[in-house]
Amino acid sequence: MEGFDLEKEMKELNLTTSKESREDFLSYKVKPGVIVYPRTEEEIVKVVDYANRKRIPIVTWGAGTSLTGAVSCEGCILIDMKYMSSILEINDVDWYVRTQPGVNLEYLNKKLMERGFFLPPDPASFFLCSVGGAVANSSGGMRGVKYGTFRDWVLALKVVLPTGEIVKIGEPLRKNRAGYDLTHLFVGSEGTLGVITEIWFRIVPLPKRKLIPLLVSMPSLDSTAGVISDIRKSGIMPEIAEFMDSEVLKTLNVHLNAGLKESEGGMLILLIEDQDLESIRNIIRKWDGDLTELSDKEWERVYSLRAQAAIALKASAKEMLVEDIVVPVSKLMDAIRKLKELEGKFNVRMPVIAHIGDGNLHPNILLEEKEVALELFEKVGEIAIELGGSISGEHGIGVQKTKLMAIQLAKHNGVKVLEIMKRIKEIIDPNDIMNPGKYVERAYNESMRN
Amino acid sequence: MEGFDLEKEMKELNLTTSKESREDFLSYKVKPGVIVYPRTEEEIVKVVDYANRKRIPIVTWGAGTSLTGAVSCEGCILIDMKYMSSILEINDVDWYVRTQPGVNLEYLNKKLMERGFFLPPDPASFFLCSVGGAVANSSGGMRGVKYGTFRDWVLALKVVLPTGEIVKIGEPLRKNRAGYDLTHLFVGSEGTLGVITEIWFRIVPLPKRKLIPLLVSMPSLDSTAGVISDIRKSGIMPEIAEFMDSEVLKTLNVHLNAGLKESEGGMLILLIEDQDLESIRNIIRKWDGDLTELSDKEWERVYSLRAQAAIALKASAKEMLVEDIVVPVSKLMDAIRKLKELEGKFNVRMPVIAHIGDGNLHPNILLEEKEVALELFEKVGEIAIELGGSISGEHGIGVQKTKLMAIQLAKHNGVKVLEIMKRIKEIIDPNDIMNPGKYVERAYNESMRN
Repeated sequence: MEGFDLEKEMKELNLTTSKESREDFLSYKVKPGVIVYPRTEEEIVKVVDYANRKRIPIVTWGAGTSLTGAVSCEGCILIDMKYMSSILEINDVDWYVRTQPGVNLEYLNKKLMERGFFLPPDPASFFLCSVGGAVANSSGGMRGVKYGTFRDWVLALKVVLPTGEIVKIGEPLRKNRAGYDLTHLFVGSEGTLGVITEIWFRIVPLPKRKLIPLLVSMPSLDSTAGVISDIRKSGIMPEIAEFMDSEVLKTLNVHLNAGLKESEGGMLILLIEDQDLESIRNIIRKWDGDLTELSDKEWERVYSLRAQAAIALKASAKEMLVEDIVVPVSKLMDAIRKLKELEGKFNVRMPVIAHIGDGNLHPNILLEEKEVALELFEKVGEIAIELGGSISGEHGIGVQKTKLMAIQLAKHNGVKVLEIMKRIKEIIDPNDIMNPGKYVERAYNESMRN
Repeated sequence: MEGFDLEKEMKELNLTTSKESREDFLSYKVKPGVIVYPRTEEEIVKVVDYANRKRIPIVTWGAGTSLTGAVSCEGCILIDMKYMSSILEINDVDWYVRTQPGVNLEYLNKKLMERGFFLPPDPASFFLCSVGGAVANSSGGMRGVKYGTFRDWVLALKVVLPTGEIVKIGEPLRKNRAGYDLTHLFVGSEGTLGVITEIWFRIVPLPKRKLIPLLVSMPSLDSTAGVISDIRKSGIMPEIAEFMDSEVLKTLNVHLNAGLKESEGGMLILLIEDQDLESIRNIIRKWDGDLTELSDKEWERVYSLRAQAAIALKASAKEMLVEDIVVPVSKLMDAIRKLKELEGKFNVRMPVIAHIGDGNLHPNILLEEKEVALELFEKVGEIAIELGGSISGEHGIGVQKTKLMAIQLAKHNGVKVLEIMKRIKEIIDPNDIMNPGKYVERAYNESMRN
């Protein structure tokens, strides 16, 4: 490909192009040979056909909010979806929204809410991210404890396959048994199986009941884990159940003048139905927590502080790596204890923000040297694997977590499972042009080398 | 394989065996070369290894309640799961139940309910079916309108692959991003990708709020469709929204002395939250429906009548074929009108029972000659395809609907999609021993012949 002018080639296909380097949200380098800005599916087919013939990597760019290097590249054709950003149909009888992939998630939800509906998953990047990226990554968020992640909300997709065919995967129906379920294969495929051009999301009515926001200061980490465990045993399904540890609270107080109570056990942020208030009160009393019922205004402020927590942490150190592990809720205490041990052993700060209600922890590794981080990063993943959890809940794999993913699959699932994933990739992308060298392919190749 | 004593071979592997022919629920013939009754995963591996070496078809039998011939066979090894029927773990913190595939669904839910939880999907065969069969078929039921089908409730599976490896597919976690989502590929794979040996189901707390059961007699089919459409537009999520047409009501009255009001528009059975009662009243008034709020006792009776409706219909004719199509809820009226036209054209009775809230219709074809039925059966499927629906919502494909499935995929999705499904089957089952000649494989082969 040396000396080859990709931009000229794309211009000859009548595509809008540019050529510049980018960085994604975590500063992974994106150095495309050309950036194309398609406005139609047909233009995408042109690009893919070309790339498939010439064996040139394609990377699709939504808003660049990946946290795992999933859109990094060198010399690829970067398909930027900025002009594929129309909401095509909001159907309030069939309860779906059909949209192009470049639509901003917050904007989509604003439009849905005007009609009394919403699309629940709310990644922290909701105000930045594209819905196409959220699907490719099967992103999660605070509402995951009740509503799951994006994989629970995609009914159907239109996709340009690596071999150039436009296909629809799935049906915009709640029930459909016509063949193997391929929809979920494409959700969370991180751009390795095709270019998503349309999405049918399932939508649901906005909750009608009044939800009660609570702030709970906990005396110890044991008691925090105890509260969550008891909430689950009592059959209470919170709308939101978040956690910030004492280090996070301190950082918010110092950097954002938050005025939050600091305590050993950190803070729980709960959003619950009124019917569950009495049970929650009792549980928190049992574990010596300090509960405050929030006004709407206070809730807004706390929600915003929670949303800014990662940014405040990042500002407090030279380097930050955001971890994303899941453990069974019953193993929360073990996980937190092991994380604290690691902090001591590596002598780094690793404040934890968590979607604690579903066991999804984000230890944020703060440090001066990146080398230490990478080793620590793996140790954190190993805690998840050891406790029967997962090395990623909602950030995905990209280039960052392929080794851990291979370890997890080998330990929990059997090596054959990774081989099946790799072979599915080969079937759908025989010339390996779709976001190559990452995720499943990379995990497989690395595991073969060992 | 002629003159070959499969039973002797299986006995030599120290397996419990028998040899007799069976029929499934719809009288499809099951004539195995041998039936084995494994008690452990290791015994299943022995069988699969043997079958894979000798290229002998394996069919897995849960409770035989398939409605599509999915467990029919001639000369296969039938793996009967009757001894793999233990509930292994109910985890009320991590909100899952881990179970063997042979467990009866009603029994499982009874055990879960004792702990305050449940597994929502409720196929009409819930009191007969095995949970393994329900997963293999991704079955649905009356609660589908709110809770979806089995594909929404499986977290992870243990599977003996056709090549003999024991693997775990997925993780028993709400959030997991370690690799492509294969779990949903196996759910609804109708025994063609492996033998399921363990299942982790997501469970949720029983609803705490009082639900209100309503019986609504409708003056016309237009008004029935109008009510459903308005319920959706109002953002009301019923727990149950069922429909029986006038022909079904008449049959229940004649055969079970039901005393239900017969009217042109049939009857809606709704289970709703109290907060929605006023809105529902208004909608039904608008469409001239006749609403009765049911006591607990009346509700039990109506629920039971609804459950027996298909059986009563079957008793009223010589032959009955149960259809299972889905249409977008917004196309319900078009669908019902087209079904009525077919009734006239073919001069048969085709009473409709429906999970109307999610657009899932069960026209029951009653007749004397089966020949007519098969042509009519296809016409019914074509209505679903034409209206943007699906030829199956919850009964699946088996040997019965392969042609319609191929047509739907070609029209809605692109022929490449069926090819991808077929190639996934080949990867996982290279010697084609798992329930061969059905479903995806058969649909693909038929479509190639055309």
